[in-house]
Amino acid sequence: MQNKISIGIDIGGTNIEVGWVKADGTVIKHLIFKTSRFEQPELLVEEVGNAILKENQEFSSDEIIGIGIGAPNGNYYNGTIEFAPNLGWEGIIPLAEMFIEKTGINTKLTNDANAAAYAEMIYGGAQEMNDFLVVTLGTGLGSGIVINRNILYGSTGFAGELGHTIVENNGRECGCGRKGCLETYASATGIVKTINNYLELSKKDSSLRSLEVIESEDIFEAAVEGDDYANKAIEYTGTILGKHLADYIALFSPEAIFLTGGLAKAHSLLIPSIEKAMDENILKIFKNTVKVYPSVLMEQNAGLLGAAALHS
Amino acid sequence: MQNKISIGIDIGGTNIEVGWVKADGTVIKHLIFKTSRFEQPELLVEEVGNAILKENQEFSSDEIIGIGIGAPNGNYYNGTIEFAPNLGWEGIIPLAEMFIEKTGINTKLTNDANAAAYAEMIYGGAQEMNDFLVVTLGTGLGSGIVINRNILYGSTGFAGELGHTIVENNGRECGCGRKGCLETYASATGIVKTINNYLELSKKDSSLRSLEVIESEDIFEAAVEGDDYANKAIEYTGTILGKHLADYIALFSPEAIFLTGGLAKAHSLLIPSIEKAMDENILKIFKNTVKVYPSVLMEQNAGLLGAAALHS
Repeated sequence: MQNKISIGIDIGGTNIEVGWVKADGTVIKHLIFKTSRFEQPELLVEEVGNAILKENQEFSSDEIIGIGIGAPNGNYYNGTIEFAPNLGWEGIIPLAEMFIEKTGINTKLTNDANAAAYAEMIYGGAQEMNDFLVVTLGTGLGSGIVINRNILYGSTGFAGELGHTIVENNGRECGCGRKGCLETYASATGIVKTINNYLELSKKDSSLRSLEVIESEDIFEAAVEGDDYANKAIEYTGTILGKHLADYIALFSPEAIFLTGGLAKAHSLLIPSIEKAMDENILKIFKNTVKVYPSVLMEQNAGLLGAAALHS
Repeated sequence: MQNKISIGIDIGGTNIEVGWVKADGTVIKHLIFKTSRFEQPELLVEEVGNAILKENQEFSSDEIIGIGIGAPNGNYYNGTIEFAPNLGWEGIIPLAEMFIEKTGINTKLTNDANAAAYAEMIYGGAQEMNDFLVVTLGTGLGSGIVINRNILYGSTGFAGELGHTIVENNGRECGCGRKGCLETYASATGIVKTINNYLELSKKDSSLRSLEVIESEDIFEAAVEGDDYANKAIEYTGTILGKHLADYIALFSPEAIFLTGGLAKAHSLLIPSIEKAMDENILKIFKNTVKVYPSVLMEQNAGLLGAAALHS
């Protein structure tokens, strides 16, 4: 039987990864580009498109079934990226259409967190589940919401923005221009902000004081070594997230919530705090109906796999 | 052509309404029972079931296609009512099964707010819509969430509890045993609590002071007559609701939000406050994507129509 191959493109703030993915999720070819090289989307389509066309010469044309793109602020309905501040592109970019024109290959596009949810459903821990959430804890908090094995897109294609629900009146400033969004607390950026606040407000010893710039990974390492601030910051972050996940459970009633992204690498420390706060805040009828798991695709590029799976 | 008739049963805290509903939504027969008469669900099934069997003698047996029940804490998957404090019944009641046994008629059951959403989709303002919310502002705040013309049930059958998201830390006590749920502010009960707080904390004149017990309708009447407190209470209620609807829009991205229930009768005063707060709090990409409407079925029993429509 001939292999069917889908090309996944994961567009992140730092890297653009391109993978040739077989139906079983094996990535048989993989390219990486620096996002910062592409000040305009046209440059990206030209260079990545050329690379795809070149590599595709190894395959017969009917082996390649399509291109799938996962990107911040991606709109599945329109194949567009709309107002994505992290990419530095303005306005509405018809990226799927541009790839079709460049490569002649059928191209679909979705939001990066939705791609991660799609990957979890097809290749990850949700293969047997109908209803689940995937929460990506990276620079921001993204979410893919799956209802009856369909991604929730809503009328605009932008549904499922858990990260931009307001959890604190006049809270931390968010990149969206508002204040107190969940992602300003529960994200890699959020936990760094939390620890910097602690270090500023107190004089207690911490190994983190010696660092010029603290990254979320530094906090996990310090926590494992017993640093009080680091452990407190993880507990604070997990508590906020768990408390609001309790509300989202009352809305979506998922079977499970999968965590992925940089901050989720601390899942062994983070999940106990999340589950405690969830349990304390959840409506009675939902008690013990939901499990929180680290994504089983954490060490792979779930965005790329999920984007490729748009053609599955 | 023969008429197909579905029997809708709307179980409320005060009344149980039973209607024989034609496919076009016409109610051709209508019975009302006092809920308080039925201390046990068995008594309800016996009496309402007998009434149904008696009235059904007017129809040929293949005219009646089924019974649909809308009830608080109803679970569509299991046909059960689970832990419904307003009805005074304990535990899990297999009500659909009990009606099937009593009447021999195929019976489905759903949550009362979901029934209202179903009615809006089949007979109301959402006939042409794929994605919308129905919010029932009565004793509590119920909600039916429609995604791609399907009611959101989630893995447990209880999804869509907007009224039990916590909007105020250590806020008002809720019947669910927690504090600060949206329904303690945005409901007929909530607005009465708000106005009583105002009257207690200040000495200013208000026509409402002469009433022994204030009901939400009294507040609307006083507001129309220019009462300051009444207008302030409506504005406060609309502002809280609108602010949190902005978050739900980021989650569900509906085309429209329909309001129904006792408090929604004040929609001409309430909706401007809701829309203002929604607009001030909404994430940019959702601006101007959603309209708030009063349900067009407000003067009918949407719960009954929607319950009957479970067999459409």
